[in-house]
Amino acid sequence: MTRYQHLADLLAQRIEAGLYQSGERLPSVRTLSDEHSVSISTVQQAYHLLEDRQLITPQPRSGYYVTPRKHTPPAPAISRPAQRPVEITQWGCVLDRLNEEPDSDAIPFGSGSPDMCQSTMAPLWKAMTRLMQAQDSRVLNYDPVYGSLALREQVARLAIDSGCHLNPADIIITHGCHEALMVAIRAACQEGDIVAVESPAFHGIMQKLRGSKIKVIEIPTDSSTGISVEALKLALEQWPIKAVMLVPNCNNPLGFIMPEQRKRELLSLAQCYDIAIIEDDVYGDLAFEYPRPITIKSLDTDGRVLLCSSFSKTVAPGLRVGWIAPGRYFDRVVYMKYTGTGASASHPQLAIAEFIKSGGYQTHLRRMRKYYQQNLEKFTCRVREYFPCGICVSRPQGGFMMWIELPEHFDSVRLSLELSEAKVQFVIGSLFSASGKYRNCLRLNYGLPYSDKVDQALRKLAKAVECAMLECQMQIAEENRQAHANR
Amino acid sequence: MTRYQHLADLLAQRIEAGLYQSGERLPSVRTLSDEHSVSISTVQQAYHLLEDRQLITPQPRSGYYVTPRKHTPPAPAISRPAQRPVEITQWGCVLDRLNEEPDSDAIPFGSGSPDMCQSTMAPLWKAMTRLMQAQDSRVLNYDPVYGSLALREQVARLAIDSGCHLNPADIIITHGCHEALMVAIRAACQEGDIVAVESPAFHGIMQKLRGSKIKVIEIPTDSSTGISVEALKLALEQWPIKAVMLVPNCNNPLGFIMPEQRKRELLSLAQCYDIAIIEDDVYGDLAFEYPRPITIKSLDTDGRVLLCSSFSKTVAPGLRVGWIAPGRYFDRVVYMKYTGTGASASHPQLAIAEFIKSGGYQTHLRRMRKYYQQNLEKFTCRVREYFPCGICVSRPQGGFMMWIELPEHFDSVRLSLELSEAKVQFVIGSLFSASGKYRNCLRLNYGLPYSDKVDQALRKLAKAVECAMLECQMQIAEENRQAHANR
Ligand SMILES: Cc1ncc(COP(=O)(O)O)c(C=O)c1O
Ligand SMILES: Cc1ncc(COP(=O)(O)O)c(C=O)c1O
Repeated sequence: MTRYQHLADLLAQRIEAGLYQSGERLPSVRTLSDEHSVSISTVQQAYHLLEDRQLITPQPRSGYYVTPRKHTPPAPAISRPAQRPVEITQWGCVLDRLNEEPDSDAIPFGSGSPDMCQSTMAPLWKAMTRLMQAQDSRVLNYDPVYGSLALREQVARLAIDSGCHLNPADIIITHGCHEALMVAIRAACQEGDIVAVESPAFHGIMQKLRGSKIKVIEIPTDSSTGISVEALKLALEQWPIKAVMLVPNCNNPLGFIMPEQRKRELLSLAQCYDIAIIEDDVYGDLAFEYPRPITIKSLDTDGRVLLCSSFSKTVAPGLRVGWIAPGRYFDRVVYMKYTGTGASASHPQLAIAEFIKSGGYQTHLRRMRKYYQQNLEKFTCRVREYFPCGICVSRPQGGFMMWIELPEHFDSVRLSLELSEAKVQFVIGSLFSASGKYRNCLRLNYGLPYSDKVDQALRKLAKAVECAMLECQMQIAEENRQAHANR
Repeated sequence: MTRYQHLADLLAQRIEAGLYQSGERLPSVRTLSDEHSVSISTVQQAYHLLEDRQLITPQPRSGYYVTPRKHTPPAPAISRPAQRPVEITQWGCVLDRLNEEPDSDAIPFGSGSPDMCQSTMAPLWKAMTRLMQAQDSRVLNYDPVYGSLALREQVARLAIDSGCHLNPADIIITHGCHEALMVAIRAACQEGDIVAVESPAFHGIMQKLRGSKIKVIEIPTDSSTGISVEALKLALEQWPIKAVMLVPNCNNPLGFIMPEQRKRELLSLAQCYDIAIIEDDVYGDLAFEYPRPITIKSLDTDGRVLLCSSFSKTVAPGLRVGWIAPGRYFDRVVYMKYTGTGASASHPQLAIAEFIKSGGYQTHLRRMRKYYQQNLEKFTCRVREYFPCGICVSRPQGGFMMWIELPEHFDSVRLSLELSEAKVQFVIGSLFSASGKYRNCLRLNYGLPYSDKVDQALRKLAKAVECAMLECQMQIAEENRQAHANR
């Protein structure tokens, strides 16, 4: 670290600690140069750096002042989607996303992948290599359609942590959580049905429903406690809803964990209206709190919960190992699994079973929970620092997804095009609505290792948001002016 | 090899070569003992062995005679399924098959797996191990939904051998041929449609149609030339058929290769009635003839053929790497693939791409073609030798599946239960019909390395068939008698 960077950090800490208060004038360049025995130019460089970081602001002919301290942006308010079943649109933008050329220069805030560079992955690599070196014949052969027993045993063991008592025979291994969700839908629903979802909701879930010719009704969802059980009740009273599909733990995109009481209420409601619950717990093991939150499945008494998960977010998505515990839908799920893809690949199942059995998975989880929580702190700080006022930011309680809500008229699609040229990628909010709501929102992956490049990308993003917000305001003002003039 | 085995083989060769003719008396034990300078007991042992192999028959007090030579059993006649759309049943027996406990002691004539023990697999193991040792990060990450470009390039290259000119961009990698077939159905058909299939037809295809709520019409199929184009035409005239699904090269279960002229006729018919063709070429590279037969896809001019395949039969099913070239259905197939399973696993794709690129795949194919052809000869000989008269046996032109048709009233389900206790597994014929026809048929995998154990299992099977046939005949006679008595 250079001398001026060191000085800048020291000053930043003092500002953070409140030794220099918001709006206060900072010592002159000469004073600091004397105090720290460094050259005038070193102090000037340090001040420039802090200015770049927007911690201080220069006033012509008067010196530097602590930038008025920004408050933490509020969390998004509860969502208010239209309360009627709709056809899902938005496939076009999902496809655009799938078609994005992989670009190793770009900063992928839009990525759905976890960080996979931690040393705690080593035992998994070892297990994978060992199976290959041993030329284990199971690698080549058809697995049972239910998946490998070795893995199902380990999944049953893990499920205890989320309060679930499952037998290996209750579990079917799938090709990622994607397949688990799809077979769940096909087992519990039919063409023409209506399914309730969170709002915003994971676009993968909605596209699966669309592909199955099912309509959705988006239910108001609180950014820190999840789907509104009251609103769901109203919807159930009004519409013949067949199932509710949700991500109650470390939600994608909002990051909330549904409080246990709400989970109970939701289950009671489902029992009362006799609907299925398709529960996606793909991020559940990454909750910051320990022990991890329970699943709704753990409360289930009559087999109406189809619990779907995978090792894509906790370990690595490229292995495509997921699972489903489908309760009373077991037979139909086996059928859908068989007809959809036949057996699953053996090698990654055996490797993950080994990884869990040896304790490597749990060690890795401990590392990742901490890593994501620390990264979240960094990101939240920087977002507060770099982004303009007037935004809302979710408060994730696990996983690695952050949701930013910009003012109502903001167009994240335009922003996305603009920034993809600057090699900054994120996910536009409208993917997370059946009907194209949330165009004013973005989802960021805060699990990226926080490097200088990442920091610069976040700044670029913040800057572009600021410009776009200004433009947007001006446009609205202009429209108002014209409307006024035309009156 | 012991002395008596050697002698037995020598005598068997002479019989085979016609030096000792069918029904002829063989030299006495003493004569042979003198001629070959071996002990009396050696000759006796040799004769016992040949007797066991049913090549010779003892006549009390008269010596040994060459067993009257059996004729090659005829190929099954063209099938005659009901010519109307039916709901598919038979899921129960498919499920039973999926639930069969793997039993390493049993002889798996029912297996759908290729032989994977040949040394030509070594380069694949190497490629797989290398990727793991290098900790190639692509192994862990999400692949593009279309699959890895490296593999799509190689698949496009291979397709040239079947007369197809494909671009990598025309191909989508899938989770085995199972997924390819399923996305093809979901892209080209809807609930309530009617699809024409071969009869007998691969049960996986029919279950996928059932799962998609599609009815099938089984079309008469010739055991050596495939689906009857004339019969299909009649069906098309009568019913609103949406697509035809077939395995024209090295058919499962019949083993035929549809002649090129028929393929052309089928395509013209499809064009004329504007239906889609879902072509399953999963065994196509294993045709005994070289160069391999063309696909119908190679004749396609307007994108109506969805070509499905995988490396499950040519390389190893446990890797779950398949592909589809869906022609004009490309966009819908991408959608179905995305919603069904998301991306495919990277590692096996990269390994197979490498295997093909380095020439290893082609070397392996050459070996396997020869191996299966030689095995087929052995199996055919033994089946002729061991099985009773009155059966029909298919004449496979590639792949490793053999179809045996027993007399009409034969019950292969009972036989299967009986033999599973004796640790001999095969597939019952009724799986291959929508409506439970072919209960009198069996499918055998003749790709198993021909060991003594396999030979014994084949004998047991033949013996059990013989007994059951006798019983069956007696029962019919008894029924006739009673019917007569009651008249
Ligand atoms: C909530 C949620 N469910 C399911 C998935 C898909 O998981 P997989 O990669 O295991 O198919 C994702 C990943 O994007 C996700 O965010
Ligand atoms: C004709 C046919 N198509 C498809 C399949 C399934 O292939 P995969 O294992 O690649 O899914 C099989 C295997 O049983 C088959 O025989």
